[in-house]
Amino acid sequence: MKLHLLHQCVFPTIRLRSIIKLRGSSFSTSASKREGGVSMVQGASRGLGLEFVKQLLVKNSQEHVIATCRNPNGAAGLIELKNKFSERLHIQRLDLTIESTIEESAKAIGERYGHLNLLVNASGILSIPDVIHPETTLTKIERSSLLLAYEVNAVGPILVTKHMWPLLKVGGGVGTERDVAVVANISARVGSIGDNRLGGWHSYRSSKAALNQLTKCVSVEFARKKDPVICILLHPGTVDTDLSKPFQKNVPKDKLFTKEFSVQRLLGIINSSKSHDNGKFFAWDGKEIPW
Amino acid sequence: MKLHLLHQCVFPTIRLRSIIKLRGSSFSTSASKREGGVSMVQGASRGLGLEFVKQLLVKNSQEHVIATCRNPNGAAGLIELKNKFSERLHIQRLDLTIESTIEESAKAIGERYGHLNLLVNASGILSIPDVIHPETTLTKIERSSLLLAYEVNAVGPILVTKHMWPLLKVGGGVGTERDVAVVANISARVGSIGDNRLGGWHSYRSSKAALNQLTKCVSVEFARKKDPVICILLHPGTVDTDLSKPFQKNVPKDKLFTKEFSVQRLLGIINSSKSHDNGKFFAWDGKEIPW
Repeated sequence: MKLHLLHQCVFPTIRLRSIIKLRGSSFSTSASKREGGVSMVQGASRGLGLEFVKQLLVKNSQEHVIATCRNPNGAAGLIELKNKFSERLHIQRLDLTIESTIEESAKAIGERYGHLNLLVNASGILSIPDVIHPETTLTKIERSSLLLAYEVNAVGPILVTKHMWPLLKVGGGVGTERDVAVVANISARVGSIGDNRLGGWHSYRSSKAALNQLTKCVSVEFARKKDPVICILLHPGTVDTDLSKPFQKNVPKDKLFTKEFSVQRLLGIINSSKSHDNGKFFAWDGKEIPW
Repeated sequence: MKLHLLHQCVFPTIRLRSIIKLRGSSFSTSASKREGGVSMVQGASRGLGLEFVKQLLVKNSQEHVIATCRNPNGAAGLIELKNKFSERLHIQRLDLTIESTIEESAKAIGERYGHLNLLVNASGILSIPDVIHPETTLTKIERSSLLLAYEVNAVGPILVTKHMWPLLKVGGGVGTERDVAVVANISARVGSIGDNRLGGWHSYRSSKAALNQLTKCVSVEFARKKDPVICILLHPGTVDTDLSKPFQKNVPKDKLFTKEFSVQRLLGIINSSKSHDNGKFFAWDGKEIPW
């Protein structure tokens, strides 16, 4: 009867609520573990974010995905996926720099699904012609670039985490192969202070170091409150995306990953993560990166 | 003759230029080492900054100090010092959030002194009633607080470093007991990601982690260009200042330092620092802090 109920529900929120009702506050059941969860990918219009959406949908036929971006109408890749996975993909407008759109997204996801099992913060800014360009020297740093990179790469993901936290607490690992819900913040090895031997890229590096610190703060609170939620930081490697395009010429061919490869490895880390991984910073190969 | 010349000069810029003229590009001489240098303290109206100014003036009767703050007319502590050290203290208006005032300060200092041997970035923001308050939980973080702390604690000090760099390169260690000019950025142990076991204070912690990363970037460039300049990060301990006032109740008495004690220790670190300390993060007791 329970399994029957689970399969019939269109939206996993109802399924989850049934489980909770039937099992009190139990979050993890062997039945639910095979069902597929609800994942949100923030910054999903292209690059790594779009690839996360694709792989999440393809790899589990029960997975529901919320893909957010600033301008859904212009997100050709997402629209294409929506044609293929109309039932399981929901595209939601969210602009990281406008907190009300994050709140509205949380409300909409809450009403539609009731919970979340995974939040991937995939958005990132490194270079936009005439707006922000990675600094090669101290003399080129600009206040506006430093602030913009910080706002998009550090503040945004943490505001999204803030507003999705209640949904992640409800979701935990139910419907997934994990015991916990995961917040996966896409960071970068160049955000590591200890690993910084080349200098430069001041705006990007400092925004990612700040994201690392913010994620660490959040992980401490998740642990203290004994939430069924962890947060981790991921370095995707140098991936062939629009973000890295202007800087690929010095990257050896075998170090320039495809989106498919990188996201496959990152999803492997996410899906096998446990409570004790909370607050850690992993590279695509699963190795920890120093702060 | 040379020593005579050195003592006669009112402004050390002339003194330094004489040394350079006499000795080509040599930056370090045993004669000049006993002269006293030119130090700039940014954020000098109160707290640690004001104490740095005081100790720099008192400890070396040949030292010239530029004290910067947003509102010189309201800086009672600096005005009091100016009455005592009128020849050796120059008060300069500088607002960290307005880059033109940093540029103007660099120009004024360049014209007056021609060089700098020390830059202490002492300003910092943690808490202002109704504006910014250290967050105790993720649900309380606010975009405006995150951005303000970043702008004051991370962006400002790096913009000051950017504009003072040419003056620091000219100054090196000449007139001081060091071989190098020093940029000392006041950071905080709570900015350490690796040491973050309590969470909270998101805005402050992430801004200081970003400052650490920016300082590391700058240190790499200083080293690569073989400038006679290093930059270091300093944790002053928990010091009895306006900044820490609202948070002192849980600090054991022997861990709450006076400004006098903390600055004495930090100046000890600055004055004994060598090229190989470039890019390091020291606590008041000289021990390195992990990133």
